[in-house]
Amino acid sequence: MGDVTMQRARAAIEAACDKAQELGAATNIAVVDAGANLKAFVRMDGAFLGSIDIAIRKARTARLFEMDTGELGKLSQPGGPLYSIEHSNGGLITFGGGVPIKTGAGEVIGAVGSSGSTVENDQMIAEAAARAANE
Amino acid sequence: MGDVTMQRARAAIEAACDKAQELGAATNIAVVDAGANLKAFVRMDGAFLGSIDIAIRKARTARLFEMDTGELGKLSQPGGPLYSIEHSNGGLITFGGGVPIKTGAGEVIGAVGSSGSTVENDQMIAEAAARAANE
Amino acid sequence: MGDVTMQRARAAIEAACDKAQELGAATNIAVVDAGANLKAFVRMDGAFLGSIDIAIRKARTARLFEMDTGELGKLSQPGGPLYSIEHSNGGLITFGGGVPIKTGAGEVIGAVGSSGSTVENDQMIAEAAARAANE
Amino acid sequence: MGDVTMQRARAAIEAACDKAQELGAATNIAVVDAGANLKAFVRMDGAFLGSIDIAIRKARTARLFEMDTGELGKLSQPGGPLYSIEHSNGGLITFGGGVPIKTGAGEVIGAVGSSGSTVENDQMIAEAAARAANE
Repeated sequence: MGDVTMQRARAAIEAACDKAQELGAATNIAVVDAGANLKAFVRMDGAFLGSIDIAIRKARTARLFEMDTGELGKLSQPGGPLYSIEHSNGGLITFGGGVPIKTGAGEVIGAVGSSGSTVENDQMIAEAAARAANE
Repeated sequence: MGDVTMQRARAAIEAACDKAQELGAATNIAVVDAGANLKAFVRMDGAFLGSIDIAIRKARTARLFEMDTGELGKLSQPGGPLYSIEHSNGGLITFGGGVPIKTGAGEVIGAVGSSGSTVENDQMIAEAAARAANE
Repeated sequence: MGDVTMQRARAAIEAACDKAQELGAATNIAVVDAGANLKAFVRMDGAFLGSIDIAIRKARTARLFEMDTGELGKLSQPGGPLYSIEHSNGGLITFGGGVPIKTGAGEVIGAVGSSGSTVENDQMIAEAAARAANE
Repeated sequence: MGDVTMQRARAAIEAACDKAQELGAATNIAVVDAGANLKAFVRMDGAFLGSIDIAIRKARTARLFEMDTGELGKLSQPGGPLYSIEHSNGGLITFGGGVPIKTGAGEVIGAVGSSGSTVENDQMIAEAAARAANE
């Protein structure tokens, strides 16, 4: 396959909204494609304005490094091997809430980012979306 | 009221996709709110990657100046009263395809941008979306 | 296929250098992939420093809009339908020297940009490179 | 001499690719010249997209401060003498993988950056490339 279609991107956003409502959260949700370019985005009513950019950056970061943003963040702490990696690529976000979209074969074909709730909630929302993008 | 809800933003994007398919076009469609901040976005399959940014800028431009982007473009030509206004606000797009979302009372509560087809098609798609955002 | 491999990117750069030398030119040559991300780059000895960025932007522009940069430039002149499109995508270059890499089936899987000689030479160099990327 | 030629830059990249393959890694490799401007670049197939920018920044950082990026990183930790130097020069990268190219007389005439594998591997790859640039 190799890329996220509009239909799959929308399914991801739908699943993210459902999960957010289940958690009582309102977030921004972004989906990027295999080339890390924006494919779909929605800001739920009441979600932080400042989280628009963060949701998009989380999705980009997860695609660019093919891992959850929170995993990258463990490596970028002071004293860690990737300290200050956030200064690259026009600005990364390295706390939780960005999750790659992988095919069954493990190929990364895009990513989802959620921002606006707690990091734990954002991570669960992004995971639900990434799963839905592949169903 | 005063702002575009997620539900209205999605209705706008749905109408834009319908119009684009009717025209045989594939475009990027962006909706911004009353504060000119991104509310929703979709890139149709096959749409230009370069038009992601243009669709968002068209929507922002239409909201920021409360007029169709093509109208602003007439004023920004060499020798015109607003020549080079494109350099402001981080970069405006001043050709057709950006349309404000107005309430019945004429209040501007957001805008839509479409990019990826001819300027004429993009304008029709954005108009269809802006109408749907208010229904 | 869907993307430019390292081997094909290098073949493109080799062909560009050969063409440049045949023309007595020294240029910067950039290759981007299907996602408009840099794949390979070389600056020939004596080529303008200012053309590093232009070669990369030409390649990106040709990928993003799936056409030769010079063709886009015809549409972006004052009074033209895409006037000032250069303000999008972080800055486009719309004069000649950027050429998409297309498969036999017409799918755009990347692009080449050359900068540092006359626009005519840069265009010929980029065309030679784009051809070589597909052989 | 005073600068890295295209021939030497390509030899550096060749050596980097060989070293990467020996290590079972796929990385992005950048070479900058005496003026810290990009001279050559290659992204190996399968290398992280996010490492394009990091490889270039590592090479620039190593040239700008005439030391390995990992050495600079020891000084930029919280509490260190150069804390937050990453904010300068449009964004530095201060973990390992950037290595200056020095003449026999110790003059810095460029630098190499590698990104996409572990910091240890990237450092070895960049060292192999910097050596090859001087042979």
